[in-house]
Amino acid sequence: MPETIASQTSGSHSIGQSVRMAEAAQRVTGRLPFAGNIEVGGMLHGKILRSPHAHALITRLDASRAEALPGVVAVLTGQDLLGGEIEPYYGPALPDRPLVAIDRVRFSGEPVAAVIAQDEDTALAALDLIEVDYEELPAATTPEAAIAPEAVEIHARINERDYLSFPDLVLHPGAGKNICNYFRLRKGDVERAMGEADEVFHDTFRTPAEQHVSLEPHVTVAQAGADGVTIWTASAAPFTVRSQVAETLRIPASRVRVIVSNLGGAYGGKTYPRHEPLVTAMSWKVGGRPVRVELSRAEEFYTITRHASVVEITTGVKRDGTIVARQVHILFGAGAYADISPRLIKNGGYSSAGPYRIPNVTIDSYAVYTNTTPAGGYRGYGVPQVAWAYESQMDMIAERLGIDPLELRKRNLAVDGDTFATGQVFEDLHLDEMLPMVAERIGWDGGRSVSPADGREPGSRRVRGKGLACIVKTTVTPSTSTAAIKLNADGSANLATSSVEIGQGARTVLGQIAADAIGLPYEQVAVSYPDTAVTPWDQTTSSSRTTLMMGGAVEEAGLKVRQQLLELGAEMLEARIEDLVIGDGSVSVVGVPARAISFAELVRHSRSGNLQGQAVNRSEGGLDPETGQGIATARFYHAAAGAEVEVDLDTGRVTVLDLHVQTYGGRVIHPTLASLQSEGNLAFGVGQALYEEIVVDNGQIVNTNLGDYMIPSFADWGLRWTTGLSEDPSGAGKVHGLGESGAPAVPAAIGNALFHAAGIRVKELPLTPERVLKALRERDQQKGEEQ
Amino acid sequence: MPETIASQTSGSHSIGQSVRMAEAAQRVTGRLPFAGNIEVGGMLHGKILRSPHAHALITRLDASRAEALPGVVAVLTGQDLLGGEIEPYYGPALPDRPLVAIDRVRFSGEPVAAVIAQDEDTALAALDLIEVDYEELPAATTPEAAIAPEAVEIHARINERDYLSFPDLVLHPGAGKNICNYFRLRKGDVERAMGEADEVFHDTFRTPAEQHVSLEPHVTVAQAGADGVTIWTASAAPFTVRSQVAETLRIPASRVRVIVSNLGGAYGGKTYPRHEPLVTAMSWKVGGRPVRVELSRAEEFYTITRHASVVEITTGVKRDGTIVARQVHILFGAGAYADISPRLIKNGGYSSAGPYRIPNVTIDSYAVYTNTTPAGGYRGYGVPQVAWAYESQMDMIAERLGIDPLELRKRNLAVDGDTFATGQVFEDLHLDEMLPMVAERIGWDGGRSVSPADGREPGSRRVRGKGLACIVKTTVTPSTSTAAIKLNADGSANLATSSVEIGQGARTVLGQIAADAIGLPYEQVAVSYPDTAVTPWDQTTSSSRTTLMMGGAVEEAGLKVRQQLLELGAEMLEARIEDLVIGDGSVSVVGVPARAISFAELVRHSRSGNLQGQAVNRSEGGLDPETGQGIATARFYHAAAGAEVEVDLDTGRVTVLDLHVQTYGGRVIHPTLASLQSEGNLAFGVGQALYEEIVVDNGQIVNTNLGDYMIPSFADWGLRWTTGLSEDPSGAGKVHGLGESGAPAVPAAIGNALFHAAGIRVKELPLTPERVLKALRERDQQKGEEQ
Repeated sequence: MPETIASQTSGSHSIGQSVRMAEAAQRVTGRLPFAGNIEVGGMLHGKILRSPHAHALITRLDASRAEALPGVVAVLTGQDLLGGEIEPYYGPALPDRPLVAIDRVRFSGEPVAAVIAQDEDTALAALDLIEVDYEELPAATTPEAAIAPEAVEIHARINERDYLSFPDLVLHPGAGKNICNYFRLRKGDVERAMGEADEVFHDTFRTPAEQHVSLEPHVTVAQAGADGVTIWTASAAPFTVRSQVAETLRIPASRVRVIVSNLGGAYGGKTYPRHEPLVTAMSWKVGGRPVRVELSRAEEFYTITRHASVVEITTGVKRDGTIVARQVHILFGAGAYADISPRLIKNGGYSSAGPYRIPNVTIDSYAVYTNTTPAGGYRGYGVPQVAWAYESQMDMIAERLGIDPLELRKRNLAVDGDTFATGQVFEDLHLDEMLPMVAERIGWDGGRSVSPADGREPGSRRVRGKGLACIVKTTVTPSTSTAAIKLNADGSANLATSSVEIGQGARTVLGQIAADAIGLPYEQVAVSYPDTAVTPWDQTTSSSRTTLMMGGAVEEAGLKVRQQLLELGAEMLEARIEDLVIGDGSVSVVGVPARAISFAELVRHSRSGNLQGQAVNRSEGGLDPETGQGIATARFYHAAAGAEVEVDLDTGRVTVLDLHVQTYGGRVIHPTLASLQSEGNLAFGVGQALYEEIVVDNGQIVNTNLGDYMIPSFADWGLRWTTGLSEDPSGAGKVHGLGESGAPAVPAAIGNALFHAAGIRVKELPLTPERVLKALRERDQQKGEEQ
Repeated sequence: MPETIASQTSGSHSIGQSVRMAEAAQRVTGRLPFAGNIEVGGMLHGKILRSPHAHALITRLDASRAEALPGVVAVLTGQDLLGGEIEPYYGPALPDRPLVAIDRVRFSGEPVAAVIAQDEDTALAALDLIEVDYEELPAATTPEAAIAPEAVEIHARINERDYLSFPDLVLHPGAGKNICNYFRLRKGDVERAMGEADEVFHDTFRTPAEQHVSLEPHVTVAQAGADGVTIWTASAAPFTVRSQVAETLRIPASRVRVIVSNLGGAYGGKTYPRHEPLVTAMSWKVGGRPVRVELSRAEEFYTITRHASVVEITTGVKRDGTIVARQVHILFGAGAYADISPRLIKNGGYSSAGPYRIPNVTIDSYAVYTNTTPAGGYRGYGVPQVAWAYESQMDMIAERLGIDPLELRKRNLAVDGDTFATGQVFEDLHLDEMLPMVAERIGWDGGRSVSPADGREPGSRRVRGKGLACIVKTTVTPSTSTAAIKLNADGSANLATSSVEIGQGARTVLGQIAADAIGLPYEQVAVSYPDTAVTPWDQTTSSSRTTLMMGGAVEEAGLKVRQQLLELGAEMLEARIEDLVIGDGSVSVVGVPARAISFAELVRHSRSGNLQGQAVNRSEGGLDPETGQGIATARFYHAAAGAEVEVDLDTGRVTVLDLHVQTYGGRVIHPTLASLQSEGNLAFGVGQALYEEIVVDNGQIVNTNLGDYMIPSFADWGLRWTTGLSEDPSGAGKVHGLGESGAPAVPAAIGNALFHAAGIRVKELPLTPERVLKALRERDQQKGEEQ
């Protein structure tokens, strides 16, 4: 908080305290509201018929038997989209996706028709009665296959409508077959620098598609009446849903009301419109009656995934380890529709240079259409894919040059004043202190484990090793958040915000910021849920931006209220504002606590019923579309991870023995919640490293359930695991978002530990026993050949 | 609208147009949301046991049999209020009322206990199982009886807590037995002026208690959880409900969320907390489970009424009709609890001097506790009672002085520059033009009917006459409204307001004001419903203040958005703001319509996601508590009525032949809605004049149903009836509230017509056949005596 404010505050602060969560009692008593619990009078239930084929033409669709089933109200098909009343296509960046398939399906699981019925069972039964004939087409389910010369064209033409929400995005048409969008970055002179390098490393790394696996699936109730639409949904981006649904129904955005309560997890999977436009169209189809659709776990896998990636990374170094140039070529598997890929590949692109001082960088990042579930944001937003690549290669470089991987990183790590890949000057970057901390914490000694693994079980062959990694991540910039505060007649305050409570504690943290800014006990502040009809506009709850961007808006709104209180206090106490202190709900004269007036009295004195403060918090930035140079971020989030693993050489199983994630926190608002964010990152990192992978076979996802799709349990996080937050010791640090920083560092730390344990370099995630065994076998073969 | 704005607007205006109502489609399809339709998961149902006695001690209360009934969850009794967890007493001005009776009941129908059960039938059945023993006390059911020396004291002591919300109210303690509050006004020297008058008229007029008879009864769902309270209720004052409920539960107001949708009528009956604190306590009693209570028609009569009144009015006049002095002594029957009486008697008090130029005025207005249902605001807020008195007496003065009643009024009517009873200078008053219009409209000829009534039916004896009346009414002042507008990325706008839609069209009219202020087509603006957690603060939707006060806030908020659009437009069009016009959602260069930029493009250019405008609209005023002198109102609302009636001399029945109500509208936003407001006033005036009266017999209301309690049907409004709105012909008039102005003028116009028809002066409302017959008999007796 600004120094003048701090010096003028009396009483308690809540920032820095682990106060009780805003909705604590509801959380522990099972009464927390979720979209899934919404009951609207006359509500119908919907189920979605999905394509069994990865790519096919629809030659016939007959819903008449389904429509005739008692209890079925209607069936929405592609034919309903062609009447001109509603917009058939949608998409947050590029409207390339039909609400339901019109004449062609482009991925297995794509909605083909939607049944609206009196109850879920009837709707489900009716799905079987819809007759669809398909003519199968060749499918490309990986980005590499999709850009191959012989690949089928997945989109005959890309819908011409403009990018909707993102004036900063530029389409690069003609970039190649099935290329949805393309990002390029050019910094320095890579060709020259590569020529001058002592060693050039060229490696290709791969990551699979993953599912977010929020405990709460996507669930929406939509009521598309003639006076407007109301939607209750589990979305982290209510205003984005609003724009999209308004476009779908071709009505003003003001007539779409999106109401969001608590989310049971999101991780990027709920940031952009998912099935909301479809559910709205279903309500439209039944004359505006409310329709509820809740997806099954399997359907989640057909709704949104993380981008599969192929990252070719070429790095030129001097013999002393100095990186002089990097060239990166990335294919992100967008799936069958653009969703937010055009934006994600930009972030994934420029992030691939990492937190290093690299003067010459060339990056080409592609969103590639494939015949798979569309991919979207996912905790880390492109960074996990590229961090896996650059931090794995970092250790390969260290190995080849004979430099300790920690030392190699230290030699190249950027510090404040160095420039990021986009040319933006790094600021508030602390990896040079944090990485050694992590190394010390895991007992770093060049990757060797202190204790040998052998002999614990007779006959077993186990080896141990350690690994390090660090990453930098941006936050969406430019970006805007707005907030409004009412200070009530009794001196309590209401904060209206459209930030979404995903379980991360947004309402709690924003309440703390408001309380301190105003000078109120935290308990006196209530924080709203989003309701686009009435809560102030916010971009999205994503990109680890809420505490930074909305927090900034809230703080400024609170300071405006504080200023009014001080002015009223000066009037009533007949004192100068400079001689007043404020806190715990009252204003008093410095050193004369008896001369105090409560906020309630001050509001009464104002004769205005309440006091108000509103604020807009906007960050500036943007990149040149041709060079990728410019301001990428309002803040450089960063984290480092260290891991020790044990590898069973017989089974290939990798066990995490020890794991530490250190995140830069700057100014931590709520230590417990911040710590829980870090733990979540650690868990997601382990999942990505060892377990999570959507497996596609013959165009079909074969593991659409939590029996076959593995997410880590607590036991998998490590025999020992810890998280740490680095803070500005003065307490005056800047707010840093914490929601995504740690996760991307974990897979490479584990992969590097695997290398130091077993001498194998697996370049594709996850590090399954199969891949490890295969690599061990290859290593042994190679050794055999060498001998 | 300000002139500079008008000159800079292109395209269509919606102000002055009868645009489609905001929720028109929902209204005509039966889908309009009401509090009564709310379903909350796990909702319980409550019923209230009510006292059969007007005044009694509770000597025993045993709810154990009721609690044992299967399906009953709990029974709330007075004992629950004494545990210290919740505040036992409430009241919007004075916390004198227990949530349920604690040891004494003070009116027949007072809540004694409340059953919470799984369903309504069970709750109802359980009421019979609650055993209560009473010890009856003497009751005073009229204000005159209550101030008699022998009357019982209804409140042993008045709760000492301060008046809650109204710093402008002053208690006059020690004003007498059962006096709840007292208002005094002293202007000029009445004693001297009365001495100098040629004639002094002293008359006493009476009006009965009435019920509001909203089609929608009071209905509330309350959920009092540990993290805060949510209340869905049919209230016209969400923020007042919020304060009250916060006090009841002793929690910050910020933790109480009051959500209001549409109201099915209110007329003052829903302006202050009614059963919301009780329903909240019921939810508290069952551990925070949601509880729903919907009152029956009979219970409405036990919930709130209009104040019965006894108005003694003494007027001194010169022989030429000039009024030189007036002295008024008013008893308002407050019922058993203060409710809003302390404020209402002030308005009723100072309004009793009427719209006349009277230099010397003394007014004493009392709120008197009685053993009847508490009285509150009711369309006209004290004015209908006193207008009945002063406009009846006006015709009596005219009769005695031999001056045409129209002429007498014209000689005394105030014009701009004269002073109101409070000393405030009249402004924007047009009765001197309007009253002659009304007279002309009904064919005024001194009160005589043009067509004789005799002979239409053989043997019937019918007479006809005409009457006039006019009134002035204030609006609550000081007063504050706040509004917030978001201009969305597609150029549409959301208005957030806490004004309540009662059917009067608040959302429509505020939408029009916002649209014109911004420069948007009306259809692009959506208007919120109130939700105290997120919509900006508003005082109440009452006192005909919404279009004036909230409309002013909305206009200012809209102009702030407009200014931003013009600034962005100037930047993009490279033109000076003075050279731009704005309208229909775009900004263009004057005379060069092709050089136009849509609002959507301007918002995109701002890179802020949206544009915002907030405004506070505050009126200033207040009266000296000793003299009642000061600023009473932000606007003088006024209206005039003319009536022709036929009186059946055999049955005493009064039939309205012709009725016209002329209201000053200033600047009319929506002609159809304005006209409907006037029609409602006409209907309420007829009801008060001829039909409506709560009849109390032996302490009991005997007509708690719409069979026995008569409200006028359309047929009763008159064989012919019309309404008119006077507007500023320039179109630049000031906004005047229209919700209450016409009604108070109607009863005296009908009473005066009755006098001119039959020569009888009935001084008590309603003008029932019984009262008319009695007066006819007295007249005949007197005539007989005279002969």
